[in-house]
Amino acid sequence: MKRVGSVSGFALLALLAIMAFAGGAFGQEEATVSPEMFTVNNLWMMIASGLVFIMHLGFATLESGLTRAKNTTNILFKNTLIPCLGVITYAFVGFGLMYPGEFNGYLGFSGFGLFPDEAGVTTAYAGGKYTFWTDFLFQAMFAATCATIVSGAVAERVKLSSFLIFSFFFVSFVYPIAGSWKWGLGFLDKMGFYDFAGSTLVHSVGGWGALAGVLMLGPRMGKYTKDGRTNAIPGHSMPLATIGVFLLWLGWFGFNGGSVLNADPAAVSLTLVTTTLAAAAGGLSATFVSWAIAKKPDLSMALNGILAGLVGITAGADQMAMWSSMLIGVIAGVIVVYAVMFFDRMKIDDPVGALAVHLVCGIFGTLAVGLFGNKAGVGQLVTQAIGVAAYGVFSFISALAIFGALKATMGIRVSPEEEQEGLDLGEHGMQAYPDFQQSSFGGGPGLGVPAGYAASQMAHGALHTKTEMA
Amino acid sequence: MKRVGSVSGFALLALLAIMAFAGGAFGQEEATVSPEMFTVNNLWMMIASGLVFIMHLGFATLESGLTRAKNTTNILFKNTLIPCLGVITYAFVGFGLMYPGEFNGYLGFSGFGLFPDEAGVTTAYAGGKYTFWTDFLFQAMFAATCATIVSGAVAERVKLSSFLIFSFFFVSFVYPIAGSWKWGLGFLDKMGFYDFAGSTLVHSVGGWGALAGVLMLGPRMGKYTKDGRTNAIPGHSMPLATIGVFLLWLGWFGFNGGSVLNADPAAVSLTLVTTTLAAAAGGLSATFVSWAIAKKPDLSMALNGILAGLVGITAGADQMAMWSSMLIGVIAGVIVVYAVMFFDRMKIDDPVGALAVHLVCGIFGTLAVGLFGNKAGVGQLVTQAIGVAAYGVFSFISALAIFGALKATMGIRVSPEEEQEGLDLGEHGMQAYPDFQQSSFGGGPGLGVPAGYAASQMAHGALHTKTEMA
Amino acid sequence: MKRVGSVSGFALLALLAIMAFAGGAFGQEEATVSPEMFTVNNLWMMIASGLVFIMHLGFATLESGLTRAKNTTNILFKNTLIPCLGVITYAFVGFGLMYPGEFNGYLGFSGFGLFPDEAGVTTAYAGGKYTFWTDFLFQAMFAATCATIVSGAVAERVKLSSFLIFSFFFVSFVYPIAGSWKWGLGFLDKMGFYDFAGSTLVHSVGGWGALAGVLMLGPRMGKYTKDGRTNAIPGHSMPLATIGVFLLWLGWFGFNGGSVLNADPAAVSLTLVTTTLAAAAGGLSATFVSWAIAKKPDLSMALNGILAGLVGITAGADQMAMWSSMLIGVIAGVIVVYAVMFFDRMKIDDPVGALAVHLVCGIFGTLAVGLFGNKAGVGQLVTQAIGVAAYGVFSFISALAIFGALKATMGIRVSPEEEQEGLDLGEHGMQAYPDFQQSSFGGGPGLGVPAGYAASQMAHGALHTKTEMA
Repeated sequence: MKRVGSVSGFALLALLAIMAFAGGAFGQEEATVSPEMFTVNNLWMMIASGLVFIMHLGFATLESGLTRAKNTTNILFKNTLIPCLGVITYAFVGFGLMYPGEFNGYLGFSGFGLFPDEAGVTTAYAGGKYTFWTDFLFQAMFAATCATIVSGAVAERVKLSSFLIFSFFFVSFVYPIAGSWKWGLGFLDKMGFYDFAGSTLVHSVGGWGALAGVLMLGPRMGKYTKDGRTNAIPGHSMPLATIGVFLLWLGWFGFNGGSVLNADPAAVSLTLVTTTLAAAAGGLSATFVSWAIAKKPDLSMALNGILAGLVGITAGADQMAMWSSMLIGVIAGVIVVYAVMFFDRMKIDDPVGALAVHLVCGIFGTLAVGLFGNKAGVGQLVTQAIGVAAYGVFSFISALAIFGALKATMGIRVSPEEEQEGLDLGEHGMQAYPDFQQSSFGGGPGLGVPAGYAASQMAHGALHTKTEMA
Repeated sequence: MKRVGSVSGFALLALLAIMAFAGGAFGQEEATVSPEMFTVNNLWMMIASGLVFIMHLGFATLESGLTRAKNTTNILFKNTLIPCLGVITYAFVGFGLMYPGEFNGYLGFSGFGLFPDEAGVTTAYAGGKYTFWTDFLFQAMFAATCATIVSGAVAERVKLSSFLIFSFFFVSFVYPIAGSWKWGLGFLDKMGFYDFAGSTLVHSVGGWGALAGVLMLGPRMGKYTKDGRTNAIPGHSMPLATIGVFLLWLGWFGFNGGSVLNADPAAVSLTLVTTTLAAAAGGLSATFVSWAIAKKPDLSMALNGILAGLVGITAGADQMAMWSSMLIGVIAGVIVVYAVMFFDRMKIDDPVGALAVHLVCGIFGTLAVGLFGNKAGVGQLVTQAIGVAAYGVFSFISALAIFGALKATMGIRVSPEEEQEGLDLGEHGMQAYPDFQQSSFGGGPGLGVPAGYAASQMAHGALHTKTEMA
Repeated sequence: MKRVGSVSGFALLALLAIMAFAGGAFGQEEATVSPEMFTVNNLWMMIASGLVFIMHLGFATLESGLTRAKNTTNILFKNTLIPCLGVITYAFVGFGLMYPGEFNGYLGFSGFGLFPDEAGVTTAYAGGKYTFWTDFLFQAMFAATCATIVSGAVAERVKLSSFLIFSFFFVSFVYPIAGSWKWGLGFLDKMGFYDFAGSTLVHSVGGWGALAGVLMLGPRMGKYTKDGRTNAIPGHSMPLATIGVFLLWLGWFGFNGGSVLNADPAAVSLTLVTTTLAAAAGGLSATFVSWAIAKKPDLSMALNGILAGLVGITAGADQMAMWSSMLIGVIAGVIVVYAVMFFDRMKIDDPVGALAVHLVCGIFGTLAVGLFGNKAGVGQLVTQAIGVAAYGVFSFISALAIFGALKATMGIRVSPEEEQEGLDLGEHGMQAYPDFQQSSFGGGPGLGVPAGYAASQMAHGALHTKTEMA
């Protein structure tokens, strides 16, 4: 009988394990899930991290496509450095600031660096959703996004070194502290504020930073003339801009889908569908609104409409029905067109439309949770508005302070001469397309002759001269 | 004994559960699988959806790369709008038309919109392969592909508004009704017709639409001269075209691999290998055949050869051996070169080779199932041919009818002046590369001066003038 | 009692199965794992294969971006053909050479082609990590990388046909034989040499091939002038180069993450984090070092720094701590800048910096395992050095032999005229950007007129003339 008894014990244990497995997929609150579920959850979170990573390439191509050829190397440089900077600073301080554990709800710090204990790679870390390493990776990919949003708005005139210092502080401190208020379970989380994947925590925080930068920098030369005219300054490559938006859309599958924080079939698949419907609806509505206004179908508006829909759905992507998702997309698509026109009328010069997309639609999306979400109602709407305001005040003032300090010391804007000739030559001594661009230094060679040779001596000159001397 | 008995019951239950798990991977016909298997199956289907999505960027870059710079904004606009339009219309009507449930085998409709019951997100929906939402997402990403195929063939002369209306009808009705005949378990499915991932259902349906469009539009100005010469009109950016083909190859991993409809290791991995071998073999064979004919290695033929191999393997990617996969790729690579030459000789002007790739190789791939597939033989070959013919008749006539009605009313072709100056200025007032393109309006600025400024007043003029007045 | 006994047996069986599941995630040495674990493991390996595949697009865009517009079609052609060639030859001979099973440790062959027995798609093949087909796919995607590395270094002057023949031999024989010494469990594996994902087996093997090619070809015309000056020859498109590096970084998630060979949460997530930290640190350190030297922030150095970090971490990505990962990235970023300058000073002309990135940092990364890895110490360091040397001798001599034989027979370098006018016209008769490039044949049309028409008759001439005659 002992043996039977012991077998019964085993069988019970087996049953409990199976029940844990079965429960795991839909309510992962159990202390642990099966190794298989842990593995598939963690796999999805790693893939989502990769998808968010590729958004940085999306931003790089979108922003460079929507600006002029003479500033392309500069923009690519910024957008290449930002994820590098973001990942490293997030490893040192950001992760600890954003997820401080038990804290006062406003500011906390769980420590420098990435040194998990042994449990960090087991189901004990997060109930089998992901490991410590995956947690860091996914969050780190998010972190740099804020600074990237700023990058587009201040493009074509910001001083590179100042922008990199701004990015360092914004990514290292402003974003993670703000993030801790909600995702770190701080005071806004306790208040019931909801932002599923970051309409506010990521996009409008970045948008406020962009607004601060744009206001302190002023518009680009030639954008608003003395006689009151507004000149459009078209981007230099529509293919690059289009590549950027498609990559962002793809990346948003990880941005929103990964924010489920596990691979739950019901939750993730709903999130991907709401995300896709909002993007598509935003693209269509921005197209038709801008077509009606301008009498021409505007590709850049179609692209911004898609992004508007994506930003708009982000705060509630886990809980919208088909109609709500499409409606959010449609409204965001309309908003983005009028917001672009509004900022232009206010002579606030944002080369890529980052304010309209990330700030305005980020706010709209956050409020939309109070209008269309699970707990829609006046109470939720007010809470959402409080969250929007809290993030706005903190992010905008922080960004103003950083840009202000930089402006007062090292300056934040390139010289008019440099702006005229392009930041690629001024800041980098390297054109983005030397075979197709005429050098502005002493009337370089025209197209068709090996332009590279002439431009090259400036471009790589210092480095290579050094080489020769070494 | 009661307790033992009850333990026995538990143990039996546990065993059954385990057996269900074990069976799940290889024969998922059971009513249900474990939550883990459901999660991993659904994860793969979501990832496959993302991969098919990125094919739209692949088409956008391929088609714009293979046409002229002056029509680039127009092509990008079409290829951006099509997935937006495709997803939204598929949500409203396409999904219900394509998967009508029990129906007469020719035309059915299961209802508007996306409103799953609670079982839609459980293993009850599809035996644990995917949720309702994932099902929609994967199928919706397929839907827009047809219209995108047409887009390339009619490029550089089709009127934008007419094309968008055509796409609306083609994606909303023609593709899903045709799809229901096989994948919706309609009459061709009952007949034994086989098309694993859409050599016919997607590619040749799109190809027939393209042929209808090309025939009704006629060739581009200057393509075929009065004295009988054929002018090649090279694409404006080989990097864009190459990016397109690599993204399509990658996306095909989802297109074919996702068509397994679960993550079964044996089936999906075989499918990815046959797909890859056919693509590689197609690239090599098209390269060497065109090299032999033209005495020069032709990049665009290498690229089209890869696509030919991919289209060719698609109908039977789940069941080919190594040799068959390579052979299908090799044959498709040869076919695509001769098909390009054939259409050119017939003065059927297809700027990107869509007819050769999607129509001709789509038909070949479908027949190849009767030649090399599991049930190869005369009977299967005849059935495949019947399917090919049925899809051809329906798609071609439908597309002719839509294009014909548009031609008779609003017209389908831009004016010769617009075609000459480019659709980017004519349709959109926006050049794709304003810094590098001379405006054709009144002799704009040459290269090296800030071309953007001058071009911009046309490009964004209407929208911004409105802004100023607002 | 019989029934209870049999139930006890079932229960025990159930328990054992569960224990196997539980063990599966962390130590997959068991003969078998659950179907779910098999499915998720195999899924990750398939996705990793897709990620490594996209590295080929990364190389194509990086290499074409860092070279001149007049050679772009040629580079794209090579980088399109290489994966095709790589996959097909790996199917025929490479896979069998690299994984020969029991062998003498130096050279073995397990047979031609891909014909798994039935067990090849079950957990019996690799203990539930992946199927035979996935194994082939993942390894095949690696194989072509070597030749692609060579491609960049020999760009802008190598004869196409000779390069393709070189690639054939290098991918078919040199890489897999070298690979068998470690990953095929050959003599270096038995000696304790460690190279997790290929700092040496892939990157330095490719780098040695590149060095052999560069030495036999000599520098590009105009790179080093008679009066001792070094001319920088800047690449023609910084956006393409940047796209390339981001895609490579993304692809490296599969390259390193997939090298875990299953989806184990702890191992894969650590690997992705070490990979990302090293990439980011490399990007930052190369930026600051080159900024300090040249007084300008150099985008191409930032990009190469990221790649340097990635190559550097690859040999030990599964076992580095946060500090070690960053340190490896920082050191690699410094090394790559000085290595670029070193090769330039030695008049070894490598247009894209492939030697600095893949050869030098590949060696560094391999030695770093002996400095920072699990078994760091003099013994391990010596073993690593022996491996580095063995691979160096074999790869370099093999590549010299192949290039030497080609040089002695059909030649490996294009004519000076062809090099001057560009390999796109000389080898392919097809410009990469006909709308923006002036034809060098008889003073073609300038920018702004429909350049495509004039250029086209050369570009597609032969093929289309043939068409007309057919």
